[in-house]
Amino acid sequence: MDFDAFFEAGLQGLREAGNYRVFADLERHHGAFPAATRYREDGSSQEVTVWCSNDYLGMGQSQVVTAAMKEAIDRCGAGAGGTRNISGTNHYHVLLEQELADLHGKESALIFTSGYVSNWAALGTLLARIPGIIVYSDALNHASMIEGIRHSRCIKRVFRHNDPEHLRELMAADDPAAPKLVAFESVYSMDGDIAPISALCDVAEEFGAMTYLDEVHAVGMYGARGGGIAEREGLMHRLTVIEGTLGKAFGVMGGYITGSKALCDFVRSFASGFIFTTALPPALAAGATASIRHLKQSQLERRRHKDAVAKVRAALDRQGIPHMDNPSHIVPVMVGNASKCKWISDVLMDQYGIYVQPINYPTVPVKTERLRITPTPLHSDGDIDRLAGALSDLWSQCALARAVA
Amino acid sequence: MDFDAFFEAGLQGLREAGNYRVFADLERHHGAFPAATRYREDGSSQEVTVWCSNDYLGMGQSQVVTAAMKEAIDRCGAGAGGTRNISGTNHYHVLLEQELADLHGKESALIFTSGYVSNWAALGTLLARIPGIIVYSDALNHASMIEGIRHSRCIKRVFRHNDPEHLRELMAADDPAAPKLVAFESVYSMDGDIAPISALCDVAEEFGAMTYLDEVHAVGMYGARGGGIAEREGLMHRLTVIEGTLGKAFGVMGGYITGSKALCDFVRSFASGFIFTTALPPALAAGATASIRHLKQSQLERRRHKDAVAKVRAALDRQGIPHMDNPSHIVPVMVGNASKCKWISDVLMDQYGIYVQPINYPTVPVKTERLRITPTPLHSDGDIDRLAGALSDLWSQCALARAVA
Ligand SMILES: Cc1ncc(COP(=O)(O)O)c(C=O)c1O
Ligand SMILES: Cc1ncc(COP(=O)(O)O)c(C=O)c1O
Repeated sequence: MDFDAFFEAGLQGLREAGNYRVFADLERHHGAFPAATRYREDGSSQEVTVWCSNDYLGMGQSQVVTAAMKEAIDRCGAGAGGTRNISGTNHYHVLLEQELADLHGKESALIFTSGYVSNWAALGTLLARIPGIIVYSDALNHASMIEGIRHSRCIKRVFRHNDPEHLRELMAADDPAAPKLVAFESVYSMDGDIAPISALCDVAEEFGAMTYLDEVHAVGMYGARGGGIAEREGLMHRLTVIEGTLGKAFGVMGGYITGSKALCDFVRSFASGFIFTTALPPALAAGATASIRHLKQSQLERRRHKDAVAKVRAALDRQGIPHMDNPSHIVPVMVGNASKCKWISDVLMDQYGIYVQPINYPTVPVKTERLRITPTPLHSDGDIDRLAGALSDLWSQCALARAVA
Repeated sequence: MDFDAFFEAGLQGLREAGNYRVFADLERHHGAFPAATRYREDGSSQEVTVWCSNDYLGMGQSQVVTAAMKEAIDRCGAGAGGTRNISGTNHYHVLLEQELADLHGKESALIFTSGYVSNWAALGTLLARIPGIIVYSDALNHASMIEGIRHSRCIKRVFRHNDPEHLRELMAADDPAAPKLVAFESVYSMDGDIAPISALCDVAEEFGAMTYLDEVHAVGMYGARGGGIAEREGLMHRLTVIEGTLGKAFGVMGGYITGSKALCDFVRSFASGFIFTTALPPALAAGATASIRHLKQSQLERRRHKDAVAKVRAALDRQGIPHMDNPSHIVPVMVGNASKCKWISDVLMDQYGIYVQPINYPTVPVKTERLRITPTPLHSDGDIDRLAGALSDLWSQCALARAVA
């Protein structure tokens, strides 16, 4: 078999469908976010404004975080030097796990190299190890949760997105004696809608199920201490596991679960994806800890962020640019066509110095291609006006439908 | 179901088998490696010498690496701020991928958040996407490769460890038309033995198979430029994929594959574990790049490291402490009993200030429990004498068999 020819054919298929991805090569500037330098393939470069980062609060550029990282490098060096079990546990990891358990009001926390790995490893381990367990998974759950479930090979039911009634139907149809787990997210990252956590917990409780909540797009952002939607709604105690990332609002990298001492210890002791991998560098743990601590106390970033989101929505409305209505901080501008979406994104970058990555399949379903705009507290009013103006120009050029005011 | 009781019972099983893991809580000291502070559970602390780190060359403590990381933090901030596709590609990632492709003499490279994820995602994607492919996997392959293979659900044959004849037998029995991939490691981390790469490539070639080599424990360490065992033996061009980590000899964190442009682009475009996760922080990419560049030119670390390994072996021989003979840098001191192994490790730490983690199931098979000693260029002659002396004391106390000189 000519393997390279096979790979090329697969890539050609993506190109033809408009789904071939070209990564924007950026250099973010500490202290100047959302400004970045974009390197072109020909070696030239341009200054751009980033409008699609998941560094939602700009904490990745905060002195609070970068100073803590540099201090940890000065104290401990670069890497952890081993897996958590074999010389790789650093005191910074221990402190970070305490901070996270406290953030979500849980007994324990366990950190992983990413949010992806935390979902994959925790769900994979829990579901594979509890005999006869049935998982109930929201239809729009993230790839990392789906992979964890798939890994476990347990019985799986998919409930309609954010639909507690459908969940109840499915649970009622199963053996009451079978152990159960309900897995879902709080803020769904592509549509920005929010799960009815309380109603889902009601159903789970009715059937004695564990609840597993991914708060990846909500931690740091919602709740008085940044504990997420479950904190804001006073529901943290009803979740068996709260999972999150250190790589979005907290601005660093890494993932985690929080839960009971026994549950975290169980995952720690049995999860391949936790055991057989080098631990996070101390500097990442230190930076994340500083970020979490800061956002537990400070409301400033969250307040400014809310303001920026409202301003972006208002500016788009003024120009008649249609965006999905939702109760979160994510502003999806729908295009519904992969090639058009990519074309708009390319022109925004090349002619307006505005970077919004087109979101296409497999991240969202075909025909729901979009520009996913993520305002931050660091975008100025001028940035916002330029964004809305540029989109308005392109909407005219592309003859795309305007929203009716 | 009482889930916590279930978890507790599982943990109790580990405790009874002597396999319950207690992580040593360390603080490594930049510039003072292998010295570290160990925090005890009661809050007190002690100074220890680390003898089980995978920071094999001490690069995690090198100014070359830490200065590059701090500079990248000053320039770009903490995290990447997004997935590779959605604003998370930083210029440092691009440079690192070029550096890695060059290191292994390949067209392209692709970085992942860890070596674990690189194996899981690359093998999982290649094997799932090529219809009818059969994988031939060395019996002692790492958990991350096994998980990738398992994920793909392709047909799997396991060949006896480092046995090209058995590989040939298995391949000959399969449909000649089926696409094939042979997956193995160069240095096996627990026994320290090295694969017959050339002979395995011969067999693979005979059957038109791709070859996938994990050089995680060899990159930076072997070959004139630190390209691994395949570089040392002039075999890099015979491997379809060379996979490695940034978290061991390079001293930071992250993983990668190198191969043809089409292959890397294919994995980049289809691997869930690559696509749906926050990219490595620029500082990690910068630190890794500095480390790789340094080790491409400098032989000093590799030479000193070899000397240290030879000295440790000689010192153990003088005391009659049995260690596995192997052609690599890993010195496994066999104990063969989980509880005894843990007891020796505990006493080494508490009474001698020597930290060697006991290696037990599931990392190694039951009854092959061991102390896995990893000398570094930074261990002094005094450190080596103290280690051998302490082991000798404990060998007497435990009435363990001595090696015959
Ligand atoms: C809902 C959700 N969960 C988990 C992840 C993975 O988190 P991380 O980026 O830390 O791997 C993401 C995105 O990356 C996500 O959107
Ligand atoms: C052979 C082998 N491959 C892959 C890995 C995973 O690499 P990483 O620690 O970068 O996740 C390890 C150990 O951790 C390993 O021993």
